[in-house]
Amino acid sequence: MKTTLHNFLISALTIDNEFIDTKSIKDWVKKQNEEVVVKVHPKRLEELDKWHFDKATADLVHDSGKFFSIIGLDIKTNWGKVSHWQQPIINQPEIGILGIITKRFNGILYFLMQAKIEPGNINYVQLSPTLQATKSNYTKVHQGRSPLYLEYFNGEKPATVLVDQLQSEQGARFFRKRNRNIIVEVEDELAMHPNFVWLTLGQIKHLLKFDNLINMDTRTVISCINFGSYNSEVTDFYSTLRSKNGQKQDFELDMLISALNSEKALHRIDTVISWITNLKSRFDLEVNRIPLKEVNHWKRDEFQIFHEDGKYFKVIGVEVEIGNREVQRWCQPLVESAQEGIMAFIIKKINGVYHFLVQAKLESGNFDVIEMAPTVQCLTGNYRAGQQEYTPAFLDYVLAAKPKQIRLSSYQSEEGGRFFQEQNRNMIIEADDNFSEEVPENFIWMTLNQMLSFIQYNNYLNVEARSLISTVRFI
Amino acid sequence: MKTTLHNFLISALTIDNEFIDTKSIKDWVKKQNEEVVVKVHPKRLEELDKWHFDKATADLVHDSGKFFSIIGLDIKTNWGKVSHWQQPIINQPEIGILGIITKRFNGILYFLMQAKIEPGNINYVQLSPTLQATKSNYTKVHQGRSPLYLEYFNGEKPATVLVDQLQSEQGARFFRKRNRNIIVEVEDELAMHPNFVWLTLGQIKHLLKFDNLINMDTRTVISCINFGSYNSEVTDFYSTLRSKNGQKQDFELDMLISALNSEKALHRIDTVISWITNLKSRFDLEVNRIPLKEVNHWKRDEFQIFHEDGKYFKVIGVEVEIGNREVQRWCQPLVESAQEGIMAFIIKKINGVYHFLVQAKLESGNFDVIEMAPTVQCLTGNYRAGQQEYTPAFLDYVLAAKPKQIRLSSYQSEEGGRFFQEQNRNMIIEADDNFSEEVPENFIWMTLNQMLSFIQYNNYLNVEARSLISTVRFI
Repeated sequence: MKTTLHNFLISALTIDNEFIDTKSIKDWVKKQNEEVVVKVHPKRLEELDKWHFDKATADLVHDSGKFFSIIGLDIKTNWGKVSHWQQPIINQPEIGILGIITKRFNGILYFLMQAKIEPGNINYVQLSPTLQATKSNYTKVHQGRSPLYLEYFNGEKPATVLVDQLQSEQGARFFRKRNRNIIVEVEDELAMHPNFVWLTLGQIKHLLKFDNLINMDTRTVISCINFGSYNSEVTDFYSTLRSKNGQKQDFELDMLISALNSEKALHRIDTVISWITNLKSRFDLEVNRIPLKEVNHWKRDEFQIFHEDGKYFKVIGVEVEIGNREVQRWCQPLVESAQEGIMAFIIKKINGVYHFLVQAKLESGNFDVIEMAPTVQCLTGNYRAGQQEYTPAFLDYVLAAKPKQIRLSSYQSEEGGRFFQEQNRNMIIEADDNFSEEVPENFIWMTLNQMLSFIQYNNYLNVEARSLISTVRFI
Repeated sequence: MKTTLHNFLISALTIDNEFIDTKSIKDWVKKQNEEVVVKVHPKRLEELDKWHFDKATADLVHDSGKFFSIIGLDIKTNWGKVSHWQQPIINQPEIGILGIITKRFNGILYFLMQAKIEPGNINYVQLSPTLQATKSNYTKVHQGRSPLYLEYFNGEKPATVLVDQLQSEQGARFFRKRNRNIIVEVEDELAMHPNFVWLTLGQIKHLLKFDNLINMDTRTVISCINFGSYNSEVTDFYSTLRSKNGQKQDFELDMLISALNSEKALHRIDTVISWITNLKSRFDLEVNRIPLKEVNHWKRDEFQIFHEDGKYFKVIGVEVEIGNREVQRWCQPLVESAQEGIMAFIIKKINGVYHFLVQAKLESGNFDVIEMAPTVQCLTGNYRAGQQEYTPAFLDYVLAAKPKQIRLSSYQSEEGGRFFQEQNRNMIIEADDNFSEEVPENFIWMTLNQMLSFIQYNNYLNVEARSLISTVRFI
């Protein structure tokens, strides 16, 4: 193994796993799903155990004041066609941990993935990071059982930090929520629990071709990985691999070059920073918290908090039962989208390197007004004509893409601890030759390498863009 | 002129100016100061023309609702020794422009500086950026006279953008204020106005050895400049310069290496990001706006809003008269500090490269909880023993520094449009050999090159750290 090659890169290029082959993982997840009993019943909001509506505000809050709550926001902006609106939003001010343990076996970095049940998941069990912990969990405020493997993230046991970044979540649904995305490398022999499995990064990326297998938390954590720089050693390594596999993989090699090459971008990093600085300076986002009961155009009945036209999303209550012998039971609110959405990047080779068409997008819960988003992102409105305030740019182009242009198309789930059976179509669409390099002022072409640089410095790329980036395969 | 050398670097290494020599600049500023008549009178707060106290909140606001206002904040945090306090703060939500025009003469980049009067300046006139404009100014909301040279920043006349970043201002005084810091390069022949002058970056940095000549806005703009990478061409260029000047400049060359070398840092950038991610995750900052009249321990009399123990700062009212024949007259509040402060970096050679001891600092008005600050920063509390809630780390070391350890010591002014005669001592102190590389958990060693990388991605380094970085000379 050549040691100057980035460890993450080698893992991303590895799909042979000495523990479990890629096909068997799907069966293993299926088996995990069959073995567990999960019941999710609708429940009256007033009857959600340990939850109540605050008397003064009608915010929906947990009795402990912890976890999360549903609050109201008033939003004023000079961005877009709607200058003033109000909406419910999830408030979860504490910073949680999304952590993956990695370990080298025969020189290759493996990721410790968890088959995890979430009540809102369509299929209940998906592959999640080693650890998903709220601050209350990991600081042991409640003196409950400590989450598995926490000791490798809180300094109790030795681990080398490889990635450790604060990243945002859905800005239309969460009020300035951020999580800590961590990858550590461990040398200890680890105690293996039955619902955990070692996968290479190449396998995880391969599984993202399929619907709803890799959960959102995994996608955001692996999107933070930087793969180093392009050099001749990478080329040699890659051609050896390719001849071994006996297949032509021009597109995946091109993606690798877009991820590693820092020199052939259409715009310098400074120019991209200037582009977003200009937009942040010109557009205002004034967000004020208001009582949920005062949010215009939203109503509440026994079972839901909903928009009077049935648009966007609703907040429902559920009772959850998990387990066969030892049953866990709890109640919680979940957010149910009015319809499935699309997030898509249009990509195009410019100067011989693939560029992604990045959108500057303002969302009510954004930490810093504007974040970088996919070319098309319509999660919260119906994307079919006439159902939205306006048609998103490039949506028609994405929907009309010919099969040979579709480089990725799979359904991926949003976080099943907060969202009810929400899946969105993730697409990467290759532009045809006639597609103009000239784009509207709130769009810019960036290489994968540039996007990965921005991700490293936190809060530039939104979770929808990061989800798509996580799906990019190099093999 | 070798073209692969960074244009900013060449300007930073140039102190011979074909228009005006460095000594004459001080005389020119002095002359500007003598020629202008400035009168600043204290004025009853209730009698400030075009300002009033809001009836419901007692916030001090401009009649137009624009410019800035004095509001109240309630702050809760688990950081530091004071977990809950309230304070007045300046609210200025609009993003202004701090812009410098540069132009090449004989291949060298010159900066167009303005001798600008500000009512709060100790000496009234200081060297400011080409343009200081509020959003109301540059969007011409008021249809007033457009600021000079605005046309090179708003796209009306051609200019190449070299730097364009959003940067924060004093987090203890401003509520999440940010300005756009821009440097453009122009090829046009410019109309020169009498209070403007062309300076090289090397000259500006030289003038920062002196007290109160270069204003805060200039310091923050030039702190955003990245000088490229270190290579043999830089060494050659530098030794030619050195032999021409006939002087030994080991320290300045060492600073240049710290700015350009990206390989010899004690910590990788990823490690620094992890360090600040960890602190941001563990420490909470809950900031709520409250009516100014409800702020505990702060009082108001006819002339001022002040802390009951006389600590921190007070808000005063002034009437300003500027001009000889054509007199401009207006009223405004200014913030007056209870005492002068200190901001200091301790530096130390590690692995042969100078490292700066950076502090993670939480301030009430910070946009993102924690920013990177100088080793010692005490602006808002008295730094003499017993006058503060606690003694800042390393303060005693800085105050006891021997003359040979003091690499920089000069008084620099805070923004004279908001602060009344506030000057703070800017210091760079070289650690002695016994100074430990082991530092408390909220401190980290970084090279200048690393700090410049973080500055580029916005909002990482606070304005006090940037002010000190702006003073670093390479010649």
